[in-house]
Amino acid sequence: MFYHDKRLQYPVRVETPDPVFARMLQQAIGGVEGEIRVCMQYFFQACGARGPTNKYRDVLMHTATEEMGHIEMLATAVALNLETAPTELQEAGAADGVVGAVMGGGSARHTIEGMLHRHILSTGMAAYPANSDGVPFDMSHIYASGNLAADMYCNVAAETTGRVLAVRLFNATQDAGMRDFLSFLIARDTMHQQQWLAVIEELGGASALPIPNSFPQSEEKNEFSYNFFATGVDGAPPPAGPWSEGPSLDGKGTFSVFQNKPMGEEPVLGPARPDSGAQTEQMG
Amino acid sequence: MFYHDKRLQYPVRVETPDPVFARMLQQAIGGVEGEIRVCMQYFFQACGARGPTNKYRDVLMHTATEEMGHIEMLATAVALNLETAPTELQEAGAADGVVGAVMGGGSARHTIEGMLHRHILSTGMAAYPANSDGVPFDMSHIYASGNLAADMYCNVAAETTGRVLAVRLFNATQDAGMRDFLSFLIARDTMHQQQWLAVIEELGGASALPIPNSFPQSEEKNEFSYNFFATGVDGAPPPAGPWSEGPSLDGKGTFSVFQNKPMGEEPVLGPARPDSGAQTEQMG
Amino acid sequence: MFYHDKRLQYPVRVETPDPVFARMLQQAIGGVEGEIRVCMQYFFQACGARGPTNKYRDVLMHTATEEMGHIEMLATAVALNLETAPTELQEAGAADGVVGAVMGGGSARHTIEGMLHRHILSTGMAAYPANSDGVPFDMSHIYASGNLAADMYCNVAAETTGRVLAVRLFNATQDAGMRDFLSFLIARDTMHQQQWLAVIEELGGASALPIPNSFPQSEEKNEFSYNFFATGVDGAPPPAGPWSEGPSLDGKGTFSVFQNKPMGEEPVLGPARPDSGAQTEQMG
Amino acid sequence: MFYHDKRLQYPVRVETPDPVFARMLQQAIGGVEGEIRVCMQYFFQACGARGPTNKYRDVLMHTATEEMGHIEMLATAVALNLETAPTELQEAGAADGVVGAVMGGGSARHTIEGMLHRHILSTGMAAYPANSDGVPFDMSHIYASGNLAADMYCNVAAETTGRVLAVRLFNATQDAGMRDFLSFLIARDTMHQQQWLAVIEELGGASALPIPNSFPQSEEKNEFSYNFFATGVDGAPPPAGPWSEGPSLDGKGTFSVFQNKPMGEEPVLGPARPDSGAQTEQMG
Amino acid sequence: MFYHDKRLQYPVRVETPDPVFARMLQQAIGGVEGEIRVCMQYFFQACGARGPTNKYRDVLMHTATEEMGHIEMLATAVALNLETAPTELQEAGAADGVVGAVMGGGSARHTIEGMLHRHILSTGMAAYPANSDGVPFDMSHIYASGNLAADMYCNVAAETTGRVLAVRLFNATQDAGMRDFLSFLIARDTMHQQQWLAVIEELGGASALPIPNSFPQSEEKNEFSYNFFATGVDGAPPPAGPWSEGPSLDGKGTFSVFQNKPMGEEPVLGPARPDSGAQTEQMG
Amino acid sequence: MFYHDKRLQYPVRVETPDPVFARMLQQAIGGVEGEIRVCMQYFFQACGARGPTNKYRDVLMHTATEEMGHIEMLATAVALNLETAPTELQEAGAADGVVGAVMGGGSARHTIEGMLHRHILSTGMAAYPANSDGVPFDMSHIYASGNLAADMYCNVAAETTGRVLAVRLFNATQDAGMRDFLSFLIARDTMHQQQWLAVIEELGGASALPIPNSFPQSEEKNEFSYNFFATGVDGAPPPAGPWSEGPSLDGKGTFSVFQNKPMGEEPVLGPARPDSGAQTEQMG
Repeated sequence: MFYHDKRLQYPVRVETPDPVFARMLQQAIGGVEGEIRVCMQYFFQACGARGPTNKYRDVLMHTATEEMGHIEMLATAVALNLETAPTELQEAGAADGVVGAVMGGGSARHTIEGMLHRHILSTGMAAYPANSDGVPFDMSHIYASGNLAADMYCNVAAETTGRVLAVRLFNATQDAGMRDFLSFLIARDTMHQQQWLAVIEELGGASALPIPNSFPQSEEKNEFSYNFFATGVDGAPPPAGPWSEGPSLDGKGTFSVFQNKPMGEEPVLGPARPDSGAQTEQMG
Repeated sequence: MFYHDKRLQYPVRVETPDPVFARMLQQAIGGVEGEIRVCMQYFFQACGARGPTNKYRDVLMHTATEEMGHIEMLATAVALNLETAPTELQEAGAADGVVGAVMGGGSARHTIEGMLHRHILSTGMAAYPANSDGVPFDMSHIYASGNLAADMYCNVAAETTGRVLAVRLFNATQDAGMRDFLSFLIARDTMHQQQWLAVIEELGGASALPIPNSFPQSEEKNEFSYNFFATGVDGAPPPAGPWSEGPSLDGKGTFSVFQNKPMGEEPVLGPARPDSGAQTEQMG
Repeated sequence: MFYHDKRLQYPVRVETPDPVFARMLQQAIGGVEGEIRVCMQYFFQACGARGPTNKYRDVLMHTATEEMGHIEMLATAVALNLETAPTELQEAGAADGVVGAVMGGGSARHTIEGMLHRHILSTGMAAYPANSDGVPFDMSHIYASGNLAADMYCNVAAETTGRVLAVRLFNATQDAGMRDFLSFLIARDTMHQQQWLAVIEELGGASALPIPNSFPQSEEKNEFSYNFFATGVDGAPPPAGPWSEGPSLDGKGTFSVFQNKPMGEEPVLGPARPDSGAQTEQMG
Repeated sequence: MFYHDKRLQYPVRVETPDPVFARMLQQAIGGVEGEIRVCMQYFFQACGARGPTNKYRDVLMHTATEEMGHIEMLATAVALNLETAPTELQEAGAADGVVGAVMGGGSARHTIEGMLHRHILSTGMAAYPANSDGVPFDMSHIYASGNLAADMYCNVAAETTGRVLAVRLFNATQDAGMRDFLSFLIARDTMHQQQWLAVIEELGGASALPIPNSFPQSEEKNEFSYNFFATGVDGAPPPAGPWSEGPSLDGKGTFSVFQNKPMGEEPVLGPARPDSGAQTEQMG
Repeated sequence: MFYHDKRLQYPVRVETPDPVFARMLQQAIGGVEGEIRVCMQYFFQACGARGPTNKYRDVLMHTATEEMGHIEMLATAVALNLETAPTELQEAGAADGVVGAVMGGGSARHTIEGMLHRHILSTGMAAYPANSDGVPFDMSHIYASGNLAADMYCNVAAETTGRVLAVRLFNATQDAGMRDFLSFLIARDTMHQQQWLAVIEELGGASALPIPNSFPQSEEKNEFSYNFFATGVDGAPPPAGPWSEGPSLDGKGTFSVFQNKPMGEEPVLGPARPDSGAQTEQMG
Repeated sequence: MFYHDKRLQYPVRVETPDPVFARMLQQAIGGVEGEIRVCMQYFFQACGARGPTNKYRDVLMHTATEEMGHIEMLATAVALNLETAPTELQEAGAADGVVGAVMGGGSARHTIEGMLHRHILSTGMAAYPANSDGVPFDMSHIYASGNLAADMYCNVAAETTGRVLAVRLFNATQDAGMRDFLSFLIARDTMHQQQWLAVIEELGGASALPIPNSFPQSEEKNEFSYNFFATGVDGAPPPAGPWSEGPSLDGKGTFSVFQNKPMGEEPVLGPARPDSGAQTEQMG
């Protein structure tokens, strides 16, 4: 179960509110690279973790709980960036007063054009769980497979795209408060990349591959387990690299290139049946 | 651009059609761990690949093209498993004739109860791009970040969950044809895990971390880059492991544990503005 | 604006309630082939219809209004089929009493297994706007392009898949009341196919092609306007037919076969920029 | 920010694991009436709360934090109900051994037919953030309007449908452990209905209506503010009740019935423009 | 069943077409606070209404029918606001002619930047069932629980957020025609808030709580039915108010504050099974 | 199975990169009128095609394969249009340097306001499978009904809306490279409209109606199969046309007009059951 502290994990300051940057920050809340995703992903992985001890459940829940606080900080940052946002579609040529001034000379109309309209119409100048194009977060992005090693790679993937996003947000703004806050999130993403890779190491690293390691490899078609399948129409091989020659990373095979070709036949399905709503011509 | 051969990459045989297994196979077509996802993910990563050469674009497009053929085989497998599926909600006690027989004694009614109804109502006994619970595939699952290393971790994640799924499908059926086909897919997933990890190696492996490596780490809050943040209410540390002590995997820091605590303040937003549709009481 | 009559357009009778057939009927409410779709599609096409007169707006609104009544009848049919549905997960071997009896001997447990659980948990034995696999209807399926001829083809498409669905539902049940009701819907789908094709005729039929006819065909790459592009890897042509030879249907060209081949070059994108969150290696 | 305790808020016991009940429980996790929804709804309302003090922010965050623990308990209940679930589509007539026994005599095959297949294929016998028909939770259901009184009605609505759901789950199972757990959730829903209604009272109750109360009612078309619009085609009034006569609940008007009739004209849109992709016939 | 009149319920006039306001109006069509939602919500509640008489079914259908006309007016308003919208991405410095003039001096390019692009590309300057950020309406927002009192609270919630939205739209525009039209919608939302609250009164008001009232409260964990659970990490109570002390609103209890604490244990799931696709390490 | 060639089907040139046009092009990738849709639609129709020969399977697969190359070209066009896009939210009055210049004088800030933010934040200046408002493509738009004639009408519908979209994109840009490329796509859409109509002709044309033709028309309610149902409240007929009089298009009936009226009764559902979570008042 959970507890909260009213204070934020890290200070969130906005020097010059910018409602278009508020839109950008939404990607870190409700985007697929964002914080709801990692929070809920670690949470559901923790709740479903099976194994001899609860070790990984615990590790995951520590970080899920931290991420909940990241969503809170970002939602605060969005609200602060919207504090002086315009609410009325004035004529473009009109004097914009205070609002325009803080926007660096842009008119209120142009600012609204670049905003998420739901910030004005649906939330009253606050964050909502959607991305920077207004698409609501969809929980199908919570990857929790029941296989710990697979889950860890999903987590590394989430934290790499997450840090890429945080860096882009950092680059997009000159606001000193926002940059300070984002430099904290970037540091945390560094750690989270590291920690999930460390779990993979403890689970055996490359030698734990292929995932899942509980399936006897004797039952897979071994002759196709370490071949790069080339699909160029002219038979040209793929660019050479450690994926096309040399020992495989799991130490269990040797990479080679295989020119993809049909091993099967053209499929022939049975005719449509009379009760199946097809055209009569399909039933012959 | 692309070409096709009418024949399948690998033989797809079904000995005893089972419409409930057809439902299960849908997960490998339209599930988040499935083949549409990897096909389209590699395709869009290829189309957006930026770099000094087109090397990674090429590698990605080879495999995207292979995956298109995997969707084709799975769609064929679904259609074959539906060949004798019931279409009418008979009484449960009724004799089921041929259909029931191939279902191992189950009645047509019970079989329909376990099927995806859209296999009967929408497709006329064929595959569609949805998962095993009938949820259509949603292209937001195509991860293509513009950062090659991040993309490769996304690809490894996809192939690990993909192989876990293929193994579960293998375990769920006793049909010799389906098991042979799935053992091919499992082998290909083994290779695809390997090949994307090999690309990461070529991109620098652990020393390419943190991703993106183009952001100067001096600009992140370094004091928080290698700390595991503990969030237990009683101050208890997380389980010890390579994530909580010792050198970090990127060789740039040393792991430690930090008890999470508020460094920020309780946020205070400005009052609601008169034109914002709030209650009057919020404007004081 | 709109008015209602409490009575249904056509009688809806259920002789033997069947909660699994209630699930099937959901496809005709909230499926992509269903009645919400056509109702809303004709409605939005009507509201956006531009032209010298309001003729097509009117035709569309007449039928949109009829379709609203179709949703009502289907929702009633779902509720009636759920009247005696089980609500408790009894043991499979338990005597089921009245409920089991009307289900033809199936147990309550098995019936629940085949039901949409939201019929029990979310609606209290009533219809909801989702399909037979429980996926909610998504309004992106409302096609209203602003081009009347294109819209009419979208409408014919909707009514053909709609009638296919209604026929499959008819085939799936032996309930006399439901069959009588469905035979009415099937007849209406026959008419709606006809009426939208009749509008296409009035708009010029084949001679109105290609759609939109307001774009000067001299501006399209005419040498590729009537060629079937063959993509077989072995250069084999497609099956011969009226799509590969002879005059085109719009009377403006002659069909031929063209072996697809690259006319463009391999694309080369610029390198990643330093501020773009890519790996350093991509910036060379 | 947030903290966690490894222990659950309330004991979660399952006496006889039932994988079909696991499916039902998913509605309380990822259904629109479920716990992710209220957790995130209160959280985002808290983060965006504007007003002279942080009072309502605090009240909301207390309960958001409690709800996070409710998701955790439900996810645990799902995993426990899946502990002995079948993973293989055996023939229906086969002896099922231990699994069948705990299912009350149902076969493994029938049990799988009634399960969410992603419990087998995607999660390895654990919960995921989807509803009982497998549809992932979609964050567009987080209502946080920036108007406190509107938000409170959204919260009451969520808790009423939430308690209806919990009662239906209670009725659906005979498992003593699950019933004990659900009786706790039902009690908490009782309180949460009460507490949000209490906030409405403090905000003025009926006299705070209409919401938002910051819009001067003199600017609305007052002649239509307290009329029930009747839309029966025969002009019949609606059933009489406190909505059709007597003083309005906000004390500012008197209810009456108004027969709906067109006050506007038939809309006439301008013709399609030449560059708009319409048919030529629409441009006249 | 239903009928239509070609004329609109209320006049819809646009003095100065503004395509960015057309985008804003989309929120009232396809947003979660919009008119499709209430129309379909009342419609499905009506179709599923169970009770001794059809009274509430009738009341609901009257208003569902009215709301259908609201969608029609809003769709007309969107089309009229798009009448002079630009279709070409001219250079920003170019003279914009008539279009720019009516936009108050903004260039065509800037106007397009602020528009929903689907208004140009997909609809030919007409409305579509999506919100102001272009997200299509999703029918999972139709709340119809089978419990009349719960449904009424859902309806009040919909009308409060609906009126908040209408007020924000009113504030966003200076167009006299649009303001007149919106002041009509605002008045109707006032009534609809009132009428659903009046139904709640007739159903017993506060004394009908908790919802559902058909579940015997003796079966819920009464000791937790009227306690505000405090989750502050420092044990601080929530802000005092009518939710933390005094009699409960349903007259059945007394509010108090309870410091949340674990009553359950740390959950321990069984190990992963050999056939479950987990890592071998999870099976110990 | 499939093969690829590194080169594009047709040259893709961008003279002046325009990131707002990149946004527009997304509609042709991930919009419902776009190329992912037709590619996947033809692919799944091919995979499920049932009939005496594989003729239509082959025809469909040829074109599915061509469409895959169309997605590739469009994705390339998007990336090229984003090459010089701004990444930082500068002040509106700031000098924009090179970037602004190529935008025709617009500032970087205004350009960002009109862009899809995910082009900056999620993809690093590349295409993704979403539409021009950022909504990801949803595979429920893949229509593959198992009825060949119905599928062909779905394909014509897709190609008519597809060509309308391509024309609008052509009209929106003055870039010579983009116009040349789009004129190729427009030509291909012309052909694809033609070829699917040609398949319908071979399947019998109008005489194959109504679809499905395998359902004996004697079983539908023939008295309603060729009547236009008028729903005007005043009994006024619809506009006269070939849909309201004269022989039907399938040669099997004669059109007439029927004034819609209730043939059914007001529905009366059974009372709510005690275990159904309704209010007690609904159970009488």
